[in-house]
Amino acid sequence: MYSDTLWDYRYAQRTHRMKSSAIRELLKLTQQPDIISFAGGLPAPELFPVAEVERASQIVLEKHGAQALQYSTTEGFLPLREMICRHTSRYGLYVTPENVLITSGSQQALDLLGKIFINPGDRILVENPTYLGAIQAWNAYGAEYVTVPCDEYGMKTDELEAALRAGPKFIYVLPNFQNPTGATLALERRKQLIALADQYGVPIIEDDPYGQLRYEGEHIPSVVALDSEYRGNNHATYSGNVIYLSTFSKTLAPGLRLAWVVAPPGVIGKLVQAKQGADLHTSTFNQMVAYEVGKGGFIDRHVREIRKVYGARRDLMLGLMDELFPPGVRWTRPRGGLFLWVTLPEELDASEVFKVAVRRKVAFVPGAPFHPVGGGENTMRINFSNARPEQIEQGVARLADTLKEMRLRLPRF
Amino acid sequence: MYSDTLWDYRYAQRTHRMKSSAIRELLKLTQQPDIISFAGGLPAPELFPVAEVERASQIVLEKHGAQALQYSTTEGFLPLREMICRHTSRYGLYVTPENVLITSGSQQALDLLGKIFINPGDRILVENPTYLGAIQAWNAYGAEYVTVPCDEYGMKTDELEAALRAGPKFIYVLPNFQNPTGATLALERRKQLIALADQYGVPIIEDDPYGQLRYEGEHIPSVVALDSEYRGNNHATYSGNVIYLSTFSKTLAPGLRLAWVVAPPGVIGKLVQAKQGADLHTSTFNQMVAYEVGKGGFIDRHVREIRKVYGARRDLMLGLMDELFPPGVRWTRPRGGLFLWVTLPEELDASEVFKVAVRRKVAFVPGAPFHPVGGGENTMRINFSNARPEQIEQGVARLADTLKEMRLRLPRF
Repeated sequence: MYSDTLWDYRYAQRTHRMKSSAIRELLKLTQQPDIISFAGGLPAPELFPVAEVERASQIVLEKHGAQALQYSTTEGFLPLREMICRHTSRYGLYVTPENVLITSGSQQALDLLGKIFINPGDRILVENPTYLGAIQAWNAYGAEYVTVPCDEYGMKTDELEAALRAGPKFIYVLPNFQNPTGATLALERRKQLIALADQYGVPIIEDDPYGQLRYEGEHIPSVVALDSEYRGNNHATYSGNVIYLSTFSKTLAPGLRLAWVVAPPGVIGKLVQAKQGADLHTSTFNQMVAYEVGKGGFIDRHVREIRKVYGARRDLMLGLMDELFPPGVRWTRPRGGLFLWVTLPEELDASEVFKVAVRRKVAFVPGAPFHPVGGGENTMRINFSNARPEQIEQGVARLADTLKEMRLRLPRF
Repeated sequence: MYSDTLWDYRYAQRTHRMKSSAIRELLKLTQQPDIISFAGGLPAPELFPVAEVERASQIVLEKHGAQALQYSTTEGFLPLREMICRHTSRYGLYVTPENVLITSGSQQALDLLGKIFINPGDRILVENPTYLGAIQAWNAYGAEYVTVPCDEYGMKTDELEAALRAGPKFIYVLPNFQNPTGATLALERRKQLIALADQYGVPIIEDDPYGQLRYEGEHIPSVVALDSEYRGNNHATYSGNVIYLSTFSKTLAPGLRLAWVVAPPGVIGKLVQAKQGADLHTSTFNQMVAYEVGKGGFIDRHVREIRKVYGARRDLMLGLMDELFPPGVRWTRPRGGLFLWVTLPEELDASEVFKVAVRRKVAFVPGAPFHPVGGGENTMRINFSNARPEQIEQGVARLADTLKEMRLRLPRF
């Protein structure tokens, strides 16, 4: 694009690797109201606890209005950090507020971690495919990637050692209901991951936005808790070798932009320095509202409701796919989270499928951008949390018709 | 600090230049309740429009709850961007929403601008002294600085040309009631800045958090509006050569973390890419609340109230300083904003004064950190917006006693 301002030739070199998220650009295409979109990663808005947020906003402003609207510390609102510590301890990990930093969404945590750890050319070990937002954040800092393939039980840890020998700065893993595949890292693999990471002296970033959203099966302990156990710490006192990320976006509301990092105090200190330069602190008001909503145990009750609704939507979608999708197409059966992952016959390009699908008024995300070193052209990510049941019925039917149409175009027919 | 986690030897090189803000660290020292602090840059909390924010939160959640709590676009809430365009046009600059990006406070705007423009080693032309938050944000991207000295009329533009010959990537200027000095760039100097920037082809970032907070004298047109006039654009249609930053932190509430950037569409596009990786978007809820509070003209009425109160506090403080401060100490008489700037006799070190002051239960910020290439050890920044009148009376008296004590220690006595 030509333009005649003085800025045009002044962009930093790092911008060459920064791209607009393919997903966010696709989402713009899919915002016509008659399109049924399985593309975004949006929670179901009809489940948002609007009344509770309203009540909490009122209480916070009436009782602590001056505090809620003022600047506050970069580390975050202490009662909220203490609440997070109590929550974490219920899942077998004992940390204190000095281990917790509040961030403006998990995306900010990824950005700040990139800023304090990644030198240009550093290799990051990731699952293949992996979360697009991490790639987008870290490309700006010059990251390179080494990948480990995944199957329905997550990262194939029997192929991890080869990747560790590339000397990665850290391992990035989404063990629960991964974005994009929906796969959950099996317990044995978590242990193997920890043992191999220890053997090579490589630390881990565990990203866990969906851990609370399990619709079947038993909770598997987090990598951070297992690592502390592995080190022989009493009561799984935090070992410090795994940095753990989670968020209120999926259990409360993404529009508040609230998430957190669990890390050793030294790392928290560096993250605080980076966050001071990045946005001073996360909205005081929103932190106090989230604490007010959550302090009496509401989020636990609310998550049970979310599990019920999302679990039913997943079941509905999987049932319809079993019934309607043509042969040669495979997909994951995630036990939680927001996404499932479809693998098409090798010859089909999901971005071509996408174009036909949009004409048929249904959308998803082609899987290639989730592969940081290329590949995955025949894969697609499908969200099942956002659309209502009747939309899921119509949308899966349209998608099935699209796939049948595409399949007929293949040379072997 | 020794620690035995795997992270300790993995920090990126850029962290060596990232320091915790000296101010934020000092602020921790000054948080004992019996200290009167002129150190922070905090608005007066008793003026926060708590009732209006509460009413707006209620309306937003009752009418648009699902939207307010959901993910939203990176660019920001369109009605808020339109409101900003209307506001800007009242000050002689005509822009459209495609020129406006909502950021999580102006600090984020500084960070994102650094990310898209600054290569390691790039020189940025700044006033000496300049805003510490900009230095903090840009150090992380490897910026170097060339400085232009300032006096009570702002940047000394007769010394600007020499600095422009150093080949800066851009000029960063705070023309109104500058942080830290409180100085306002005179109209003739604004014109000279624009002409010289044009002559050398160097673009400008104008940071204007305090422009609305003028307590005496006439409004001086912004650099961005004057630049568009200079280019001969009709009705000062935006020229694109000046990027303009402003914020709701001083006119509404900093705890909401809401600010904006005005830039050419191409730059907005790059900032959007950077912001996607940094925090996806600014809190939907807070943007909608700010729009609801502001749409009927409340902010204008509220700003008149703020001007009255802060203007009176400034007058009180200046009067007391005239009366009580010892000879040899000079200070600025800002016509607006939050800060005034004190210059001590050369032999006095403000960080030594700070230690004595804290023992006497009063605090300010030593001026040296605002000087990106060193110097300014005998300067101090004093805030007059946050403390109540009786605190100002006591605090200035304590500060005067401190300065008299320090002055007695000087060798010439």
